[in-house]
Parts: sequence; C-alpha cells; structure tokens
Amino acid sequence: MPTNQSWYLRKRPVGEVSQGDLELVTEDMPALADGMVRVRTIYLSLDPTHRIWMSDMDAYLPPVELNTPMRGGSIGVVEDSNSAAVPVGSLVNTGLATWALYNDLPGDGVTVLPVIPGLPLTAFMGPLGATGMTAYFGLMDIAKPKPGETIVVSAAAGAVGSMVGQIGKIQGCRVIGIAGSDEKCRWLTDEAGFDAAINYKTEHVGAALDNHCPDGIDINFENVGGEIMETVIARLNDFSRMPLCGLISTYNADPSTTTGPKNFDTLLMRRTKLQGFIIIDYLDRFAEGAAAMGQWLMEGKLKFETDMVDGLENAPTALGRLFEGANLGKLVLKVSEPPA
Amino acid sequence: MPTNQSWYLRKRPVGEVSQGDLELVTEDMPALADGMVRVRTIYLSLDPTHRIWMSDMDAYLPPVELNTPMRGGSIGVVEDSNSAAVPVGSLVNTGLATWALYNDLPGDGVTVLPVIPGLPLTAFMGPLGATGMTAYFGLMDIAKPKPGETIVVSAAAGAVGSMVGQIGKIQGCRVIGIAGSDEKCRWLTDEAGFDAAINYKTEHVGAALDNHCPDGIDINFENVGGEIMETVIARLNDFSRMPLCGLISTYNADPSTTTGPKNFDTLLMRRTKLQGFIIIDYLDRFAEGAAAMGQWLMEGKLKFETDMVDGLENAPTALGRLFEGANLGKLVLKVSEPPA
Repeated sequence: MPTNQSWYLRKRPVGEVSQGDLELVTEDMPALADGMVRVRTIYLSLDPTHRIWMSDMDAYLPPVELNTPMRGGSIGVVEDSNSAAVPVGSLVNTGLATWALYNDLPGDGVTVLPVIPGLPLTAFMGPLGATGMTAYFGLMDIAKPKPGETIVVSAAAGAVGSMVGQIGKIQGCRVIGIAGSDEKCRWLTDEAGFDAAINYKTEHVGAALDNHCPDGIDINFENVGGEIMETVIARLNDFSRMPLCGLISTYNADPSTTTGPKNFDTLLMRRTKLQGFIIIDYLDRFAEGAAAMGQWLMEGKLKFETDMVDGLENAPTALGRLFEGANLGKLVLKVSEPPA
Repeated sequence: MPTNQSWYLRKRPVGEVSQGDLELVTEDMPALADGMVRVRTIYLSLDPTHRIWMSDMDAYLPPVELNTPMRGGSIGVVEDSNSAAVPVGSLVNTGLATWALYNDLPGDGVTVLPVIPGLPLTAFMGPLGATGMTAYFGLMDIAKPKPGETIVVSAAAGAVGSMVGQIGKIQGCRVIGIAGSDEKCRWLTDEAGFDAAINYKTEHVGAALDNHCPDGIDINFENVGGEIMETVIARLNDFSRMPLCGLISTYNADPSTTTGPKNFDTLLMRRTKLQGFIIIDYLDRFAEGAAAMGQWLMEGKLKFETDMVDGLENAPTALGRLFEGANLGKLVLKVSEPPA
C-alpha cells in the first residue's frame, strides 16, 4: 500500500499564494476501489486558473474546499488498475485530479495517451493538452481568423499565447505578441514566427502597437486584462473579435479593487464580439482540436517550450512563476520520472 | 424658394447639451439639384446616439463637424422632386439627414413609406423604424433567445427596450424590464406584457432581480451601462448573451472618468458572449426585420408609445428628455403637420 503525498488547501490566499495557504500532507492510501486506476503523477500541470480555484469567487467550477487536496490536471502512469480498459503501465491524462503523487481515478475518466515516436510526453501538457486546446478553440471557434487579419495576443510566450500566435500564422494572419522579457520576445519572433513581439516592461505598448499594427487589430486574444487590455481595445477594428481567455493580472487582486476596461464603450463603437470561454466547455471536441494540432506539430509548424520545475514539494512556489511572468512556454511540475 | 431652418452644431457639449451648443439658423435654400428630392420634415427622430455624434469621440460615424447642421433621421413628405422614382407627395424615411425643416436628399437615398390603413405614421419612427430594427436584430440575431430563457432589458420603457421585451415575450421568454418611474413600470407590465418591471429609482435593483429572476439571467440587452449593468452582469448565467446596444448613462460623462464594469471577469466565468452592434450595420436586412415586426404589429402583439414634442425650436431641450428618462416610448419631435 503506497504512501501518498498531497497538497491540501488550508487557507484562501490573499494576494499571492504564500506559505501556509497549502500544506503537503503524507498519508496512507486506501485500497484501490472497483473500476478505479491508481495513477502516479509524472507531470503536474500548473495553470493560472489554479489561483481562481483557491479563491471563493463565483467561478466556472466550485472553489476547492478548504482542507481538501488542491485540484489540478496531470499526466501519469497507471501503477494499479481495477479497470479492464486501462491496463497497468498506461500513460494517461488524468483530467481534473489533484496536486498529489498518486491519484485514484475512475478508469473511464482518464484518457490513455498514444505513444508517438519522436513526440515528447510534454507535448500532451502543451499543444496537445488543455492549453493547446484553449488556444485552438479560442482562436478557431470564437475569433475565426481570416487571412490577412491582425491578431494581438497577450501573455504571448505562455502556454496558450504561444500556440495562439502560431495557429494565427498558419491561418495567414499578422501576429503580434505581448510578453514580459526580451528573451521571450526573441523566442516569439525568432522561433515561433510571430511578426513582432512587444516587451511591455520596457516598451510603450500603445506606440509599439501603432507601429506593428498599421491596419488596426482584428482579434485580441485576451489572457491578461488590466491596462494592457485597454491599450489593445483602443486599437480594435470594426467587427473585431475578443476571445476572453484569461485575466491573470487580476487573479491575485482584491476583488473589490478590480475594474473593467475604462474604454468599455469601444466594444460598442467597434461592434466587437467579446466571448468568455473556458476550455472545459470544449471537452467533447478535443479530438477535433488534437487532430489539427497534432498534424501541425508533425509538420513542424508548432514550436513549444516547457518550463520544467522539479519536485512536488515545489508546487506552490512554482505556481508563482506564472504570476511573475518567469515561464517561457508551459509551466510543468515534474513529480516523478517518466518511463524510459 | 423656401426658407429653411436648421440646427447647427456650434460647440461640442460638455456634459448635458446646453444653450449655445446648437443654434437654429434660418437660411435660403438653393435650387433643388438633379436627382434630388426636397423633403419637408414631419417627425424628427431624437435618439441617445445624437449625443455621441455631437462629441469628438472615435465612434461608429464621424462626429458632426462644428458649424454644420446636426445629423438626424426623420420622416417627411416630398414637396419637390427631381427624381422620377419619388414623386411629390410621397411620405419618406430620410435615413441620415439633418435637424431641419427641409432636407434635400438623393432620391435613391430615401425610402418611400407604404400607407397602411390603421397604422399611424409614428410606427415608422418606432417598431418599424431604426429603434424597432435595433431591438429586432439585437435580440434575434445576436442574443438568439430560446423559449423559457430570462431576458433583462434596461431602459425598458424606451423605444428600443420596449420592443426588446415584447419580442422576447413573443419568443416565449421571461422578460424583466428596468425603468425609471412607476408609470413606466406599470406600462411595461400592464400594457407591454413584461413579466415584471423594476423601478431603479425606488427599488434595490439587485434584490428585485433576485426576486424576479429565480433562474438567473440568460440575456442582458444592455442600453444603459454603469452600476445597473454591473448588477445585471452579476446575475448572468453560464453561456449568457449580452447585446451591447447602448451606454446612455455614459454619454454625457467626461470620457476620462468612465470605467468598465467592475465585474468584467464575470463575462469570462459565465462564458458570456457580449456583442457590440449598431443598427446601421443591418441596413441590408431591414426588409426582413420590418416584415417580422409588421406582422406582429398587425397581430396586435406589439404595443408602442410615442413621446411627442412639438416644434423644431425645441429640439435640443427635447433631446434632454432621453437623458432625464422623461420619455415613455419613442421620443419624436413634430416639426410640421402630417398630411391629413
């Protein structure tokens, strides 16, 4: 009977997640129930939305209850199985599980991953995972880009943003990314093929957008919110689209202090379609998204990076990298070794 | 050769339109040019968007230039014609003309109105005019109501809002209106068939919405903005829709002081589709909208009121009625007598 390690949510964070908000608990595991599989976590996905789940706001999923394991998705290997469909040794995507070394999950609730020669397992955390699907459906299903249009994406070097921009290029669009370091901006233009990238920490974003978007902005793929969002909204074209994917700049904020974009009326004047979306609403279309993204990956059209942090014990501090803008690409916590 | 009277825009208003912003000018008219018709205004439409056109904001049409006649739409009678298609005596909708007793307009730019026994000419200012089309396309094309859904509409006793609610009832929805007087609220429930109406000046809007919308809000047809909009957004359901038709509460405001909804993040959490729209984008579909609205009118399913003010000289003060919330139904300025 293995011993498990799980991060329990002890307090709702105020501002950034800090010590004492979560506690790493070691505990014995019960026997594996019928129909269940025991998955050893290899890679735990750390995502901005985890900060939402820790708060008690009225979000798209209920808050994680205090004194229960923190919610999270992961990729792991099945070490024990009471489900005929999922044999021991299978590599699986857990869907929603917890920040833990082991998760016992219904066999029919996990997705067995294909082994594709040459494709690293981390691809299933990135382009073929929830963040890749977020980029795919947010851009293709909501924004519906047309060749020649201009797309601006914030948090462009993140797991979602980096895919949005590259899909936009595949669609024949002009793509401008906004990111927080020169290193990220170089990666966006030199590796990911963005037309331009703006370092919002050192450049005047409005002037840079004016320079890089001479025909205005047709699509704002919004991941961040705040002043940069206002700066982009101010340059939207008539009949522009704005997939509202995330507002990471607000997730650590006191809700009583947050405001909407000052130029909200621009959404009326420009006849913008703004659409909030959450990737869990697209679960039944993942096969479609994965087929498209997988094809582009095999054609070498999608570059992706993984920001890998080692050790379950580092989960809370690793999460902070998203809010500091430290990660280039998908932030992944390596919890245990993948199979050789 | 008639003498014309036209309201010229002299200054961009600061806050409410005040004396000196517009000037009524009497001037001789030139000879009628080829292809043109001379239309004597009977009814001038006064609309919230006129305040936008007076400002120099980056709106959906260029600002009215200073020292030119104020832009506006009207219904009139053709008194002189150099256009074979539009004989003298025709009743026409001018499309975009000016606040004037006479407008010389291209014959192919005006719409000859049908004479329908029993239908007052004012119907072409309301349900069959731009405001009726705004209600129709905003609700039917953008919000796409389904039977049993709950619709909330602000400025509900106005020209657009009153039509939105009645179309919503025809679609089998629950409809709640927000308006600014007990008289308006009574009209909404007793005449227009709304399920409930909330007087925002005397009631706690949030508590009243909780009471009248036990299943939350599926559609927010937004005409007003500000705090009431936030109160409605806070109660939106998953996959709600929000046609963004107007933000009248902000049109007199200093643009540097306006803010977006504090709970902007709710649009993400609830996966709301917000769509700004302007009725001029639907010009090529007016026949479709007019056919539907005309049918419902003939079936007695649409009640409409006209808030009639007499005299071209009263145009600026009459416009103020929209911002004071004084009008019930479509605000119309009667400029001259309709044909007997």
